[in-house]
Amino acid sequence: MSEKIKKTTDHVHAIVDKIQVRYGETDQMGHAYYGSYALWLEQARGTLFRKLGKTVKEIEQENIKFPAVELNIKYIREIKYDDIIAVKVWIEEITRAAVLFKYTIFNETTEEHSCEAYSWHVAMGKERKAITIPDDLRKILQSNPNKS
Amino acid sequence: MSEKIKKTTDHVHAIVDKIQVRYGETDQMGHAYYGSYALWLEQARGTLFRKLGKTVKEIEQENIKFPAVELNIKYIREIKYDDIIAVKVWIEEITRAAVLFKYTIFNETTEEHSCEAYSWHVAMGKERKAITIPDDLRKILQSNPNKS
Amino acid sequence: MSEKIKKTTDHVHAIVDKIQVRYGETDQMGHAYYGSYALWLEQARGTLFRKLGKTVKEIEQENIKFPAVELNIKYIREIKYDDIIAVKVWIEEITRAAVLFKYTIFNETTEEHSCEAYSWHVAMGKERKAITIPDDLRKILQSNPNKS
Amino acid sequence: MSEKIKKTTDHVHAIVDKIQVRYGETDQMGHAYYGSYALWLEQARGTLFRKLGKTVKEIEQENIKFPAVELNIKYIREIKYDDIIAVKVWIEEITRAAVLFKYTIFNETTEEHSCEAYSWHVAMGKERKAITIPDDLRKILQSNPNKS
Repeated sequence: MSEKIKKTTDHVHAIVDKIQVRYGETDQMGHAYYGSYALWLEQARGTLFRKLGKTVKEIEQENIKFPAVELNIKYIREIKYDDIIAVKVWIEEITRAAVLFKYTIFNETTEEHSCEAYSWHVAMGKERKAITIPDDLRKILQSNPNKS
Repeated sequence: MSEKIKKTTDHVHAIVDKIQVRYGETDQMGHAYYGSYALWLEQARGTLFRKLGKTVKEIEQENIKFPAVELNIKYIREIKYDDIIAVKVWIEEITRAAVLFKYTIFNETTEEHSCEAYSWHVAMGKERKAITIPDDLRKILQSNPNKS
Repeated sequence: MSEKIKKTTDHVHAIVDKIQVRYGETDQMGHAYYGSYALWLEQARGTLFRKLGKTVKEIEQENIKFPAVELNIKYIREIKYDDIIAVKVWIEEITRAAVLFKYTIFNETTEEHSCEAYSWHVAMGKERKAITIPDDLRKILQSNPNKS
Repeated sequence: MSEKIKKTTDHVHAIVDKIQVRYGETDQMGHAYYGSYALWLEQARGTLFRKLGKTVKEIEQENIKFPAVELNIKYIREIKYDDIIAVKVWIEEITRAAVLFKYTIFNETTEEHSCEAYSWHVAMGKERKAITIPDDLRKILQSNPNKS
């Protein structure tokens, strides 16, 4: 029942969220802390939902949450304070209850491809258990975020 | 109706929570980020509630929350990665609906008095509005956290 | 030697930074964690420096840092996930070695004045001690961030 | 040149760090934010280094840092505020320039196996480039953290 979303494998359905690195996101190594990336990916994911036509907030009002069940981040190049990063995110796959998001981060300040990541999120209902993603929400997730 | 808790002004009712500074709590200045302190103060506050006989979790199960309405932190000496800090916290004052916590941080690694802080928190009920602190909870807050 | 910057008391020299609240900035109380505000204020401060003509990064390259010595936040209204907040920041006062920033946060989503804050930062040199703010930097800090 | 550390595959060389979940580590979903785990893993890693005989701080004083190059977290069960978690960490593999840490989190409050994770870290020298792990440090990393 898992459906690879072919259209997105070439990133046609990807959106880009630009973020500027905060001072508090760095650590004493002089670059962004490895945990800070989780917040950037989450922000980009939220922007993707919004462009798909339903915000995370609206989805939660219908008692569906999308907790992460797996997170993977590859730190390719350092990202530093004040750098402007372009977080690209798209939905790579949708199964009965879960969604796979993929991400790349291009550092616009250094012009380097700096990070690759993915995260699996499962639809969780009121009883805090995995549920089948409702059809209307599934349709939204499969739509094109770049089409108004 | 505000009652200064005289017994605590000499810190008789204070407890101390020891915390070791995490790497992710530093920033590129090479010391703890100014926002990280909020987490340490919160942890110490939670320990105080536990020693008073009722955890924050238990209080929330009775539909009372204690959001901050004011936070003040004085950064006296740098606190660095891996430093062991002793966060002292006590309740300085209780009004009808609010509680004033005071804090000091002694850095055990450098043996320096490093921070002074206070925070006001208001009792918030189900309707997300300020409520009078219930008598039983008030008694707990006025008790001695160091008495088993 | 302290100079109140009269021109800014009416916020003529204030700038506004718009921020959208991240999921990771909330806590289980269902609103933004009290510590998250420190990051927003810092971002706005960074934007102010940039508009004044010298970024925090550039200042650090000249071996001057501005660690916080005091932070005060008044939490007036709840700020929630996905809310768009307008953080207004201006320099209220400059002394020999320190700068006082003032902030207000207007929540554009709820249309409520939601927060007031200030923070004192001291100029710190290579030896990690307070230094007199150099004249050229002082001039920059006293200039109008809204004048190109 | 990569050496699987056989002795550790059965966790003989693992240490356990107990952590209590902070309020600020939760999000409005009512459990720990997926990014908070990075801080717990880091704390446990720091404790492992200390028990191996050389703290991260001491290693940095010799101009070696260990930035993450990959992070993988599997979120198996929810972890909530105030839960006491036992973070087990061990070194699974050491290559010429990199170290693979593995982690499991057992939630002592719920008595559930709650998380599995790994992270690759590369030795980085003064020039911010990968370096061969020096022999003395390699020996330390291969030693038993549970032997005094």
